[in-house]
Amino acid sequence: PKSAESTMDLEKKISVARGEQPADLVIRGGQLINVFSGEFYQTDIAIMEDRVVGLGSYDAREVFDAAGCYVAPGFIDAHIHLESSCLTVPEFARAVVPLGTTTVVADPHEIANVLGLDGITYMLESSKGLPLNVLFMLPSCVPATELETSGARLDARNLAPLLRHPRVLGLAEVMNYAGVLTRSPRVLAKIKMAHDHMIDGHAPGLTGHDLCAYIGVGIRSDHECTTLQEAREKLRLGMHVLIREGSVAKNMMALLPAVTPLTARRFGIVSDDRHPTDLLAEGHLNGLLKKAVELGLPPLTAIQMVTINAATFLSLPELGAVAPGYRADIVVLEELREFRARAVFKDGRLVAKNGRLLTDHPAAPHRPRSSFKIGWERFKGFNIPAGGQDVALARVIDVVPDQLVTRQAVLPLMVQNGKAVADPVRSLAKLAVVERHKGTGNVGLGFVRGLGLREGAIASSVAHDSHNVVIAGMNDTDMLAALKAVERLGGGFVAVKEGTVLAAVPLPIAGLLSDLPLEDVAKQMDEALAAARALGSLLPNPFMTLSFLALPVVPALKLTDRGLVDVELGTFVPLFLS
Amino acid sequence: PKSAESTMDLEKKISVARGEQPADLVIRGGQLINVFSGEFYQTDIAIMEDRVVGLGSYDAREVFDAAGCYVAPGFIDAHIHLESSCLTVPEFARAVVPLGTTTVVADPHEIANVLGLDGITYMLESSKGLPLNVLFMLPSCVPATELETSGARLDARNLAPLLRHPRVLGLAEVMNYAGVLTRSPRVLAKIKMAHDHMIDGHAPGLTGHDLCAYIGVGIRSDHECTTLQEAREKLRLGMHVLIREGSVAKNMMALLPAVTPLTARRFGIVSDDRHPTDLLAEGHLNGLLKKAVELGLPPLTAIQMVTINAATFLSLPELGAVAPGYRADIVVLEELREFRARAVFKDGRLVAKNGRLLTDHPAAPHRPRSSFKIGWERFKGFNIPAGGQDVALARVIDVVPDQLVTRQAVLPLMVQNGKAVADPVRSLAKLAVVERHKGTGNVGLGFVRGLGLREGAIASSVAHDSHNVVIAGMNDTDMLAALKAVERLGGGFVAVKEGTVLAAVPLPIAGLLSDLPLEDVAKQMDEALAAARALGSLLPNPFMTLSFLALPVVPALKLTDRGLVDVELGTFVPLFLS
Repeated sequence: PKSAESTMDLEKKISVARGEQPADLVIRGGQLINVFSGEFYQTDIAIMEDRVVGLGSYDAREVFDAAGCYVAPGFIDAHIHLESSCLTVPEFARAVVPLGTTTVVADPHEIANVLGLDGITYMLESSKGLPLNVLFMLPSCVPATELETSGARLDARNLAPLLRHPRVLGLAEVMNYAGVLTRSPRVLAKIKMAHDHMIDGHAPGLTGHDLCAYIGVGIRSDHECTTLQEAREKLRLGMHVLIREGSVAKNMMALLPAVTPLTARRFGIVSDDRHPTDLLAEGHLNGLLKKAVELGLPPLTAIQMVTINAATFLSLPELGAVAPGYRADIVVLEELREFRARAVFKDGRLVAKNGRLLTDHPAAPHRPRSSFKIGWERFKGFNIPAGGQDVALARVIDVVPDQLVTRQAVLPLMVQNGKAVADPVRSLAKLAVVERHKGTGNVGLGFVRGLGLREGAIASSVAHDSHNVVIAGMNDTDMLAALKAVERLGGGFVAVKEGTVLAAVPLPIAGLLSDLPLEDVAKQMDEALAAARALGSLLPNPFMTLSFLALPVVPALKLTDRGLVDVELGTFVPLFLS
Repeated sequence: PKSAESTMDLEKKISVARGEQPADLVIRGGQLINVFSGEFYQTDIAIMEDRVVGLGSYDAREVFDAAGCYVAPGFIDAHIHLESSCLTVPEFARAVVPLGTTTVVADPHEIANVLGLDGITYMLESSKGLPLNVLFMLPSCVPATELETSGARLDARNLAPLLRHPRVLGLAEVMNYAGVLTRSPRVLAKIKMAHDHMIDGHAPGLTGHDLCAYIGVGIRSDHECTTLQEAREKLRLGMHVLIREGSVAKNMMALLPAVTPLTARRFGIVSDDRHPTDLLAEGHLNGLLKKAVELGLPPLTAIQMVTINAATFLSLPELGAVAPGYRADIVVLEELREFRARAVFKDGRLVAKNGRLLTDHPAAPHRPRSSFKIGWERFKGFNIPAGGQDVALARVIDVVPDQLVTRQAVLPLMVQNGKAVADPVRSLAKLAVVERHKGTGNVGLGFVRGLGLREGAIASSVAHDSHNVVIAGMNDTDMLAALKAVERLGGGFVAVKEGTVLAAVPLPIAGLLSDLPLEDVAKQMDEALAAARALGSLLPNPFMTLSFLALPVVPALKLTDRGLVDVELGTFVPLFLS
């Protein structure tokens, strides 16, 4: 296990622990939530430098009064894609540290698919010196698929040097479970590379022999369970089951019944992703704890799942508990229903109080290189010739509200002037994915039902997992205007009507992240959502829905810059049936 | 975490796990004890090479029929001094592997105190190629005390290179807790050396601030709890509480009530020591499991404590469970009361069946250098001049049956010819500790009450922790004969009467280990005990009692080659009061 740098001033720590000299800080009067013994009880918590040195009765130069409160270890999110917040890491820290989160394990999968190693390096650099432990797993799926053009390609030999970084724990979720099962040399090379490190899993629905094979290569966690049966099978086979309750996928209600006193230690709670509006409205792990307790989980078990269980699973022996020798990452909670944090201590320092971060931000890191590159000279526009038919029977992507999966519908398309066009009556929009990394000019074209647009266009440079520009629109002019607006911003979400940009969320960093604080991003996001609603979409977040329409690793029908993909077949399929 | 060498033939393992080709072996028809889910259920266990590759339904080239049996992970003893068995490691393996033990974590503290690094190297070498994982913690207390002459001295700089050995996990029990609390540079240097490794604890009775200080330096386990209160405090402060049920100290009955569904994961069961007669009569971890279940612990919890709990605490991610990717160390149990093993698999091979080891022994390793060295030229004999008094008031070591602690009695000694002598009527024997490592000729002299000897002498070269020769006798002639007999054997236990050796257990390897099989050693031991009984001792094992009379780190009054030690004062005290 990698341990944090420590001053190793053992002599003084021993002396302070023995009460021979005052501690730097004592948190006094609160009920300690002891994750080892499963008890709450009142005790002083003595801190010296970055460590807890004693529980009991202590003197200190500084006393924090926690009377009436609960004192818990800082919360650990064992699996998150920070890019989902649309925030830089410092801004993410500013948002979540006051909520009690002191450690996150990030998979920089999105930015790596855009910028490759530069993206990972940027995340490592920009997460230094924060009042938040930001640990990393190396993205295992760059690109996530060969069916789309991504911005980078990372193989074992590219990733291996990063395994030595003190904040890199291992290999991130191996989404390409098919690659494991079919012994893809590229996938196995990464698994062998990380053999002595952690390897996270991602195996939705995998079961039986295939699940055994997947686990047997050394993959010891999964956060993709959606049913109780799936969670129980993965638990039995030795996986740490990380119950994911994200902005997109929400599995807590389905899975909590699997958490019993006998099994609880093998479970965690993770967010996986956290969109800016959710961060503002529901918070981070505090919100997940609240929900877990509402669903009947004992508060202590819930807290164990985001503290000691996570730290044990992650082999982080200095995190996840309030006890001697542990890093003094501590949250003082006002109660155990809302999990409102009165104060948060990071490495022994009071870093947040009553919801506000107290520390100064570190200097902003260099921005990563800009990479937005549309191949206009080869760009052929959004025309879809219908092949001389009056009514063309086509494969249409059918949106399933609130889910990453889509369905495939076969519908007759309206044809005008020989071209297939959108149809507001049936909620059929034209969909385009424009390659933005290499200037290929690639445009994938298709149709989507269920976004609800009646006019205009919306576009996003967040488009899992390759993050090309995905555009849905009711006419080609607005789609082009949307694409140009996204390009002008260097990335972002836009809503366009009659050639005019109604609203935009600029995401100039890799086309994924804003450089603004959460509140500003959320406000822009609200405006963009209002604009999309004005265009007719009734979905909770049509930009988010849009961002998953290009993800050809989740069933059933998706669109990439290279064309329409039948995910179950794993191949391109033509738009038209005849 | 250090992972075992693996063939890394991932491709084939995946294929076998998927059922595309037969497994090497399937264990079929048994009830799997699933330590993750806390269930028993029937399933095939498919094995390829050294790994479990699948649970479910599998074909294999070889099938082991486990119908009617339970299938559990091999047992792990997380803390044992192998020298306590008086066996070489191959003979120890032959004794315990058929009982279900597949992993032991050994602290070669005894042999290191005799032979230093040569002793550790000998243990590492002689434990290669066995059907038993033998892992090591580096002895932290060589010598255990400055109050006695040991055979070696190991400081951080001597030990550090061994930390890189693949079977060395960290620093063994830091018995010198006083040295931690008083910031002994020697002790702290070893702790700093092992900072990134495991550090085991040993802190009997330590509590409050001092316990916090001890834990805070990074010591995360303790196997010395004797009361429920002590176990609960250590649990709360983050220690893994290893319930020790050894040949000498037995704490299970006192501590089991601390093990609840909420706390169980933080507990283990360890043997600490296992004498040859106990190995034969009660077995190893199988016997401890039997006892735990008799005391009311659910069998599943008991098994978890010696499997997944131990592996988690030890950061051994490939051990402690039967699941894909885990090493195929498996025990097939006939029932869950006696825990009788029908078969034991190690690394996928059937290595024991119906109590018998099936594998050939590896070639015997080189013996370590011989080191027995009595300084006869400076040796002054066993005379204790009484200083001209008729009756001399003396500090006498009072044996407490079945305990390592002694009491201090103040008794008038019989004086004959100006010399204090033994007194069979009051069960007072003369006690001598003769230095045997460096030829100093040192002899510590005193008296012990309660061995029960009426005549003759008994002697032992096993004498914790420095392993000089400890001799108790009713006359100087027999004591000298006993010393000479021990020297002749190169170490051992002897019983002498009227100059004749009645019985002996030769321990020629470092004066600690026999080179014979368990059955022979136990037979010799029985004969030696019979001889001691014939000399009058009614203690269950007077040699064992003897072996702790020289241990000046356990209260209250002890004798070393340098004199009588008041352990609580930490200093030498004169034999006579006046």
